[in-house]
Order: sequence, then structure tokens, then C-alpha cells
Amino acid sequence: MGGLEQLSQHSSSPVTKENGANKKLSSDRVIINLDHGDPTMFEEYWKKNGNGCTITICGSQSLSYFSDPKNLCWFLEPEFAEEIQRLHNVVGNAVTEDRYIIVGTGSTQLFQAALYALSSPEVSSEPLNVVSAVPYYSCYPIVTDFLKSGLHKWAGDAWTYDKEEPYIEVVTSPNNPDGNIREPIVKRGGGMVIYDLAYNWPQYTSITSPADHDLMLFTVSKCTGHAGARIGWALVKDKDVATKMKDFITISTIGVSKDSQLRAAKILRVVSESCQNTGPGNVQNFFSYGRSRMNERWERLRAVIKQNGLFSLPEYSNQFCNFSGECAEISPAFAWLESKGKIEDTESFLKGHNIITRSGKAFGVSNKYVRISMLDREDTFNLLLERLSTL
Amino acid sequence: MGGLEQLSQHSSSPVTKENGANKKLSSDRVIINLDHGDPTMFEEYWKKNGNGCTITICGSQSLSYFSDPKNLCWFLEPEFAEEIQRLHNVVGNAVTEDRYIIVGTGSTQLFQAALYALSSPEVSSEPLNVVSAVPYYSCYPIVTDFLKSGLHKWAGDAWTYDKEEPYIEVVTSPNNPDGNIREPIVKRGGGMVIYDLAYNWPQYTSITSPADHDLMLFTVSKCTGHAGARIGWALVKDKDVATKMKDFITISTIGVSKDSQLRAAKILRVVSESCQNTGPGNVQNFFSYGRSRMNERWERLRAVIKQNGLFSLPEYSNQFCNFSGECAEISPAFAWLESKGKIEDTESFLKGHNIITRSGKAFGVSNKYVRISMLDREDTFNLLLERLSTL
Repeated sequence: MGGLEQLSQHSSSPVTKENGANKKLSSDRVIINLDHGDPTMFEEYWKKNGNGCTITICGSQSLSYFSDPKNLCWFLEPEFAEEIQRLHNVVGNAVTEDRYIIVGTGSTQLFQAALYALSSPEVSSEPLNVVSAVPYYSCYPIVTDFLKSGLHKWAGDAWTYDKEEPYIEVVTSPNNPDGNIREPIVKRGGGMVIYDLAYNWPQYTSITSPADHDLMLFTVSKCTGHAGARIGWALVKDKDVATKMKDFITISTIGVSKDSQLRAAKILRVVSESCQNTGPGNVQNFFSYGRSRMNERWERLRAVIKQNGLFSLPEYSNQFCNFSGECAEISPAFAWLESKGKIEDTESFLKGHNIITRSGKAFGVSNKYVRISMLDREDTFNLLLERLSTL
Repeated sequence: MGGLEQLSQHSSSPVTKENGANKKLSSDRVIINLDHGDPTMFEEYWKKNGNGCTITICGSQSLSYFSDPKNLCWFLEPEFAEEIQRLHNVVGNAVTEDRYIIVGTGSTQLFQAALYALSSPEVSSEPLNVVSAVPYYSCYPIVTDFLKSGLHKWAGDAWTYDKEEPYIEVVTSPNNPDGNIREPIVKRGGGMVIYDLAYNWPQYTSITSPADHDLMLFTVSKCTGHAGARIGWALVKDKDVATKMKDFITISTIGVSKDSQLRAAKILRVVSESCQNTGPGNVQNFFSYGRSRMNERWERLRAVIKQNGLFSLPEYSNQFCNFSGECAEISPAFAWLESKGKIEDTESFLKGHNIITRSGKAFGVSNKYVRISMLDREDTFNLLLERLSTL
């Protein structure tokens, strides 16, 4: 088991001091955990600009299971649905017209709901093959197979998939771990596609046109940084698929936290207003902030990597971003590091220097690669650069 | 599919007026939906007594996935864990010493986590049999089988289970649907037990001694009425089982809403304080309130049922309740109604009178039975009695 097991194994804060709290942060013994993409980088923005999204919930609110009994997705808070549509319209990163919105406990639950919806017994009596092109997000194989479902099974790399059977391809764009823009690879009859667009936001990539696919997944975690709320959403064209996704969430958790949906609604509204400059006070454009912070981090990381000479990083070709109105640097949420020389197992090598990363193996490729989160707090990121520069 | 499908099919408020909003509530055309156990009855209490549990969450709070990195259950808010322990101690309904606490997105997710933990491949290469004595909670078969898991499969009624294979027995006490106190039935080697104690609170039953089992499930929904928060918890003795349950929740939803956990912590604290009379102001004891309201409803329902002569209700023998210090009436969250005479399909019969209930079939027994929620708002309950009295 790759990513998520690691997530629970390394149950420690990103920066762990082995003893005492007053040691100098830059000590070599401090463990820097950048295995998971914990988006705490955005805390700084929200401390300065988050007044408008403080939420107060009283004791008699939200007792019922139901949020909107007339909606196909009866557990979706109408206020949250509205803010999802508004934000996509403001950013221009996805079409929301004629789509059903399904809310989930993070996009991880929605991924499972999508598998359930697309692999229902009418489609195939055998477990349906689920594929994604390497390097693929390390959690897809685990989530697909952990219950040994008779509905679907992980079938590995889309590049080498050659079965003449129905299949589901997961297209992650920008891709986790490597930040590349992606399209389906297999493109055969009987194929269905889930688009995981968690990172399709202007702080990470250029917004070139609104995504217009049948089944698209998003998450608050990577959009605004509020991973602790566990809120994601799906935009779904087909009514039957949307109904089955809603059924999955009804059966597995009888809906999704109303408290977090109401909070997410407020947060999304503040983000939209920050872009349109329509909010109260002087709130900085969230995505401009995110982009400039990400660009700055990437620039500093590239300088250190160039200087130490042990590793290489992907190069991205800049594209015009309709949202920012300029040709923008691509600055993914993860650094996809490859060792250039003798280091065969980069994860172990870095672990030896108390830097915890996720091995390429978990993403279906060589362990010369590792994935490093770029979204942690500033102190942790600074420490990473300091440590890397001394290797 | 029984219960949960119905939950989503009848996507309407408990009281639905066919047109307009100003019709007299008692009109025969008003649909009374008491199929699901939506605990909105408790709204009234929280409107009067809920000041102490108003929660304010600011924009920069709870961004990280992690709540307590050093805890086995790294996504459990420490404040919530503390209040769970305090409430069990105050009420005396479960032992919390030497237990791991696992938080879940409602107890439905924890039930699945428990199945996953107990049916791991080390235990059996075949899917493990899951049983429960009739009438069993209608969602168990659905939740066990909906993904056609190779780990576990629904094997029906515990009373007739005679396979010489490992098994999991679910013991719901007080039982959903019929309110009875239960113990395991099968009691054979290789058997494991999940105790679903969602209704083991003083408003529904007498607290005779603290439950002291290996794996016990609870939910905020039925304890305080806050179903919209989607928060439940498990008390687990064995570290390996607790670890696997934590793994399940890590994989399926990467933790549980922090916002709802923080809110649930405040609500549980107010409930504990209301029992100990230690809170600010004059807050009524939550369970005394709940019990007197439930007793009153049961008394009124029994009077109507006796008068119309078509149905019977279970009789419960009163027991001394350590919590209230008196011999207390049992007043379950559901009425388990059986037709006495010619009515073969009670659900259809009542549906013909615009009363939506859940058929005995869904609970593994005859469709002479139906389950009716006793936890809805006062208006709905009054309308139910009015309608029943005219049959």
C-alpha cells in the first residue's frame, strides 16, 4: 500500500523535533515530512484575509439529515452549490451549466462514488478495469482495491493497457505527482473517463479554457487549502451517473457534513469576491497570492536543485492564462524530483537526511523519483531548501 | 435495496403539502414521511438551551488534514475525544478506559470500518459472513454488500445461522427497529461481535450498567439529534482492530470533518454540563427532557393504537435506570407496528393514507410490520396521530 498508508504511518507533523521545543529549527535531526500534500501554506493568506469567512453555527442548526429534499443530491447545501457555480464562473476553469453537483467527503469519496456509478453491474459482470497513465496518483490503486470489490479492480498503467474489455480511465490534470496537463490515453470503445481536476486552479496552472467533461472532480483542500473540512464536489453531466454517485454517498456516509459545507460555501464566496474585488475591505486576490507564492517557491527550489546537481525537475512550457490575463509560469503543488546519478532509491536517500517524501514506486514508476509537497508552511519549506542545499 | 434507497427515493421533507403552503396541515393529502429516523424532535430543546454550543470557526482554522499527529487516530480532534469520555462517564452507558476512540463520518462509516477491520484477509480467504438477528437494521445488508466486497458478505438472520465458518454478528441494543435490549445469538468460536449502541442513551432506554464490549459504535445523530454533522465514534479495545478501522477511514475519506468534530465537542460538553448542572445559566437536563418528551409521545401513540384497534405495539418491561435514579419507561426511537388483522402489507396500507413508513421486509421479517420514526418534529407527530386515529 502506497500513499495513504504512508499518510497514516508518518503520523507526525511536517516538522518534528526529536526532543524539546526550543532547538534550532535548522538542526539536521529535525524530520521534514513532505510525504503528503497538506496545504497549510495557505494558512498565512487566511490569517490576513479570512475575516469574511468566519462562520457561526448555533446549537439548533443543521439537525436534519436533509439539506435540500427536492434536489437529486438531497444532502447538498444549496448555498454551497451556488458558490461552486459562482467560483467556476469567476475562474473559468470548468463548465457548470447542465451539470448535477454531487458533494462528497473530500474528492476521495467522490472518486469511489464515480467508480461505483460507472462500474455498476449493468455495465459488466466482471470487475471493471481501472487505469491511469504513469506516473498516477498513488492513492488510486489503493482506493480501487482495498475492499476487494467485485465491481472494479485496479489494472495499472493506461499506457500499456491492451485488454479488449470495458474500462475506466482516470485523467488527473494537472497531474499528481508531476504537474503535467493530461488527456485520455486509451481512447477505446467501452471506455469511461473520470477527470480529477483537483489542481485545475490558477495558483498551480494556466487556465486555458473551461473544462467540459462528463465527470469532473474538485476538492476544497487543493483549491483554498481547507483540507480539514473534508469537502469535495463532482460536476456530472449524466443523470443516471449522478444518481448512482448520490446513492454511493447515501449508503457509505448518509450524506456529507453540513457544517463543513456551510463553511466551504463562505470560503468559496470570499475567494470569488477576492477575484472580483467585490468583497468587503481590502481582500487580496486569492489566486494571485497563491500563484506568486508558488512561483517564488519554485524559483527558489530550482535554484537549489541546480546548485546541488544531484536531481532534476520537470520543465513546463508556459501558457497564456485566461484568468490572470498573462502568460504564466506553471507551479505545481508537488515537486517531482528525479535523481540524475548514482542514487537508485531517492526516497531512502532523502530519508537518510530526515526528509520524508513519497517514492516513485507508489506512482507506478522507478524509485529514482520522489514526490515532494510544495504546499507546506513557510518554515518547513525553508528548512527543506536549506537541507537540500547541503546534500 | 431497503432502507437507504428509500431514504433517497423519498427525497421530500417529512411533511409535504401537495400544493401551496397555506393549506391546513391536517389535510389528508399531506404526506407524512416517517420512513427515516431524522431526529428533528430535538431542535426544540436546542432552540431553548443551545446558546452554550454556538461555535465560531475562522477562516484560518483547521486547514491541515491532521488533528492529533501523535494519536493512532490522527484525524480525531482531541477536544472531541475528551468530551466523548466525559459524556460516557456522566451517563454511565459505556466504559471508555483502555479504549481507542475512532471518529467516523457517522456510525455508518464506522460500521464499514469495523467490517473491514474484522474481515481482513488474515482472518479468512473467503468473504466473512455478517449476520444480525431479525428484525435487524435495514441498512446492514445494503452496506455490507453494495460494493460486492471479497472481504465480507451479508449472511442474514443470526437466529438461523448454522455455518461452521468465521462470522461477524452485529448486535444492536436497544435494537433498531424494535427497541429491545439484545445480546449475541450465535456465540460460536471464530465469531466476532460489533455492538451498535446508537440508541443506548437515557432518552430511549434505562441505563443499567456501562457497556463493556470490545467494539462499540455510537453516533451524535441519535444521542443529541445533530444528524447533519455526520459524526460518530467507536470505542475499541484491541489496538490492531483500532488501527485497521483508522486505516479504513484514512483510505475512504482521509479523515473526518474537523468543523463537525469541533461542533460535536461543544454539543457533547453542553449535554454533560446539563446533566451535572454545571453549565452557565439554566440549561435543562438534556436526557430528562428527551425522556419526558419520548414518554409523552409513546403514551399518546399507544392510546391512538389502542383506540383504532388495527395494530399492536411491542410492550417493554421497565427497568431501574442508574442515570435517572428511577424505574423508567422504555421509549424507543421507532415504533414497531404490527397489523393485527387482515392488512397483509402494512407499509402499502399506510402509504394509501399518505403515511410513509419502512416495511418489515427491509428488516428481514414479514410485511405485516412497519417501522415509524418517533423522532420527527412535533407537528409531524401530531399529524401522524390525527391520521392514525381516523383509519
